[in-house]
Amino acid sequence: MPRAIGTKRAILDAALELAATRGITGTTMDDVAELAGVAKGSLYYNFSSKDNLFEALLQEGVGALADSLREARAGLHGRAALEALITVLLDRIEANAGLAKLMAAEIFRTDRAWQKTLFALRHDALAVFAEAIAEAKPATAAAGTSGLMASSVFGAVLMAGLEWLVFEPNRHRDEVSAAILESLSGGLLA
Amino acid sequence: MPRAIGTKRAILDAALELAATRGITGTTMDDVAELAGVAKGSLYYNFSSKDNLFEALLQEGVGALADSLREARAGLHGRAALEALITVLLDRIEANAGLAKLMAAEIFRTDRAWQKTLFALRHDALAVFAEAIAEAKPATAAAGTSGLMASSVFGAVLMAGLEWLVFEPNRHRDEVSAAILESLSGGLLA
Repeated sequence: MPRAIGTKRAILDAALELAATRGITGTTMDDVAELAGVAKGSLYYNFSSKDNLFEALLQEGVGALADSLREARAGLHGRAALEALITVLLDRIEANAGLAKLMAAEIFRTDRAWQKTLFALRHDALAVFAEAIAEAKPATAAAGTSGLMASSVFGAVLMAGLEWLVFEPNRHRDEVSAAILESLSGGLLA
Repeated sequence: MPRAIGTKRAILDAALELAATRGITGTTMDDVAELAGVAKGSLYYNFSSKDNLFEALLQEGVGALADSLREARAGLHGRAALEALITVLLDRIEANAGLAKLMAAEIFRTDRAWQKTLFALRHDALAVFAEAIAEAKPATAAAGTSGLMASSVFGAVLMAGLEWLVFEPNRHRDEVSAAILESLSGGLLA
């Protein structure tokens, strides 16, 4: 890839790796430059500030997640749509556990410079679930609670997915996916 | 209350209020002393370090949550036990949104000084769900996936509960509770 793009990529990857472990507040621009192997000048040439860097990182990550969810749902309805969304969300969490940890830590923060961007992105990603739920359950849409149900389903997949990757990494992903689907399938509340 | 206990309480409350907004890394001992209205000497007399303070805070908060969950489940079985656990967890999130935000941000961090304490507490709280699930679904227990299902249910309640408190605070709690139960009742996957 062209060198400028390679530098940007290296910076974003380093920033994510550091923040997934230490949190964003615990990550400094010096740490990012060092891990990315770029000079401070080059770091600031690409991202004018730490806020700017993490806004770009979340924009890229959550934006890609929302795109994957939209693609997964296309042409599907009812249970098939929901199952496809759950599967793709779990795939994305597995492929990028660092981003998933960061999302879990950031989505309810209300003090960040990039708050508006993150709210919009979060809404985009949840909206794909909410639309599938509203379509499958018109009564839910009428009551205006498809957004809450979307959060509930999203939270179930996010927490079980991170539980798997952080605490039970040797488990097969099919078991994880089956456990999530079973917890949402009503068997527990039968 | 005796003055020493009053001071400790004021410190813990101030620390939680600050960290719920800024995160733990973004909260300094100076900020805590100022908001609690205590001298730095008194702060350090009560908690020898910031790590020690936040370990105590999480220990108290997550410990109380695990106790409430155990009490709620006592004597109940099957759907009644699960519903009681979900209701009590939502109650605790409503009563202490700051702690819930902090838990969401901290439970997958692996770099904290108080990591072992938090892992043990997290396990305690989830175990109450896992036991109720294993009892209701012996096949799940045999497959060893009651922990994953417990995470899934816990994540659903935590994320929908915070969605409510942070983004849809005017909604009635019965609507929130009904949306969570519906999302776990299989209607979406019918």
